[in-house]
Amino acid sequence: MSSTSEPPGEGGRTVGEVGEGGPTVGEVGERGILGEVFGVLAEHGAAAESLRDVVVGPGDDTAHLRVRTGAVLATTDTMVRGQDWLDAWSTGQDVGEKIVTQNLADLASMGGRGTGVLVTLLCDRELPLAWCRDLTTGLARACSRAGVPVVGGDLSAAGPGVVAVSVTALGELAEGIPGAVLRSGARPGDVLAVSGPLGRSHAGLEQLRAGARQGRWVDHHLRPWVDLEQGPVAALAGATAMIDVSDGLGRDGGRVARASGVDLLLDEAAVDDLAARLAPELGLEAARRAVLGGGEEHELLATFPVGAVPTGWVVLGGAEQVQGEPTVRLGEQALDPDGGGWDHFGG
Amino acid sequence: MSSTSEPPGEGGRTVGEVGEGGPTVGEVGERGILGEVFGVLAEHGAAAESLRDVVVGPGDDTAHLRVRTGAVLATTDTMVRGQDWLDAWSTGQDVGEKIVTQNLADLASMGGRGTGVLVTLLCDRELPLAWCRDLTTGLARACSRAGVPVVGGDLSAAGPGVVAVSVTALGELAEGIPGAVLRSGARPGDVLAVSGPLGRSHAGLEQLRAGARQGRWVDHHLRPWVDLEQGPVAALAGATAMIDVSDGLGRDGGRVARASGVDLLLDEAAVDDLAARLAPELGLEAARRAVLGGGEEHELLATFPVGAVPTGWVVLGGAEQVQGEPTVRLGEQALDPDGGGWDHFGG
Repeated sequence: MSSTSEPPGEGGRTVGEVGEGGPTVGEVGERGILGEVFGVLAEHGAAAESLRDVVVGPGDDTAHLRVRTGAVLATTDTMVRGQDWLDAWSTGQDVGEKIVTQNLADLASMGGRGTGVLVTLLCDRELPLAWCRDLTTGLARACSRAGVPVVGGDLSAAGPGVVAVSVTALGELAEGIPGAVLRSGARPGDVLAVSGPLGRSHAGLEQLRAGARQGRWVDHHLRPWVDLEQGPVAALAGATAMIDVSDGLGRDGGRVARASGVDLLLDEAAVDDLAARLAPELGLEAARRAVLGGGEEHELLATFPVGAVPTGWVVLGGAEQVQGEPTVRLGEQALDPDGGGWDHFGG
Repeated sequence: MSSTSEPPGEGGRTVGEVGEGGPTVGEVGERGILGEVFGVLAEHGAAAESLRDVVVGPGDDTAHLRVRTGAVLATTDTMVRGQDWLDAWSTGQDVGEKIVTQNLADLASMGGRGTGVLVTLLCDRELPLAWCRDLTTGLARACSRAGVPVVGGDLSAAGPGVVAVSVTALGELAEGIPGAVLRSGARPGDVLAVSGPLGRSHAGLEQLRAGARQGRWVDHHLRPWVDLEQGPVAALAGATAMIDVSDGLGRDGGRVARASGVDLLLDEAAVDDLAARLAPELGLEAARRAVLGGGEEHELLATFPVGAVPTGWVVLGGAEQVQGEPTVRLGEQALDPDGGGWDHFGG
């Protein structure tokens, strides 16, 4: 599940204004768009290395992708205009980069790497072709960076104003990893750690709301860039449970707690340390809220046996014997499992 | 690419009327819907046989699916309310069955069978939960019939009135098939054949437009049911090229012709024979148009070496040395490669 940038209805610039004067997708037709989108993706290409495994790429009825490890990882995630991005803040390129990262983070959190993605674009006929090209550039950039080819996709027309981009990412466990790292493997006594700082995306969102249009946190919100290789690193180090922080530490930690049947206890000092990075610009209280509740981080949250935390990971606390309902606690306070982050269908 | 039932804007009953009085998806929230949808899908389940290959199913960051043949087939297809179905004609169950069949037909046309599907629902918060349940029943029914488990999915909120259902189907080549059957393998001298009758879905659409709400063609239009096992059968028989008829014989045949660099010559008598089945109700001319241009059939269109056409397939003509641009011809007449079927973004 993706979390969201902002509830709908606050956009300034609309998609219609992008590339004004140029053709719309309705004007070039399905074959034209496919040529543009898949043509460009094929050109930009992914690392030649990753193409070795593409038996059949875009252009036939299905893709056919070599699988070396005997099993394939598969995940899908969608971004919707007005719900997951605002045109006032995000370009098509931002959307393309972010949707790929979100999906690859899901693979990383199992201990995997991407081997191919399928892209679906659902849009209004009035969408400027320029926006599609921009999206394509973003998709190609994120895929190239990860060495993952675009192997197929779909294109569908939708009603006025609708633009949605779905990616399905396929992948495999990295070499030497015996099994996918699930949410359910945390055991009392394990150490809880995160692959990088938290709250940056939320901080960027606050800055966007306050009128900023650039800056490192704004950039991170629009195009989160995390070291997804830490997924395989954590799996090889013996991670017992893992998830990427897409809906906030409280929510995603809660998912691990419930699936594993443990309580997760956050260390006050560790949370304060993470918040301290954001505090000068956000203020301490807002910084703590960003760390505990901010979504769309895509850093990896994992539990490890004592002594197995990989270099560079930030220790946040530990897993404990459950007391009643599995929860994430900060000192005496249980974090609301539905709070802080985002529920797509919540009021 | 899916083709469509009807251009938007002719609906009678709206989604809002289904299950009136019951809760909406916005009222039960994301976790509630996921529980409903994936809970029900897990219960209905697919054949236990197919579950052997699911290492990790719904509920974690990604699915993990065993791959026995060293490579995975992957395809994705979306249906959009108002574009690919009308609520006046299709129930949620119809949509669920049809979107699964469309995707599995793409696998079949490579010579493959499904091993797992991912489902994405994009919808308005006001969508009645009853419609989701209905969709789920349809998805479960089509998946069970094919022995394919639902291994994951995504849920996203969208603006007022928007409902879209995407399926990504994963699969493998059936045993004994050395490679996927592409669109590009047809050679001059090959025989062109189809796995079943054509024009039924289009005939059903005409009957719906004329006010009918049931009947065998209406049923076929709303819930196409084809023998997808004919994909592996054709591949084992030595099919040189294959595609499923989703956008019409002219369009899909044109894709094979262009990819293979051949002309496809349709036999007048064969087309007349197929049309004769529909003529009593449609009239001869409309019946011929249904056979040549009707989409959403999902029967398989393939070329075979002489003598290799499987039992039960209908011979339609043959592949010939190309003369100029590769085309599909009926006698002297070249079928319009963009005509008859459907372009999502065409005027």
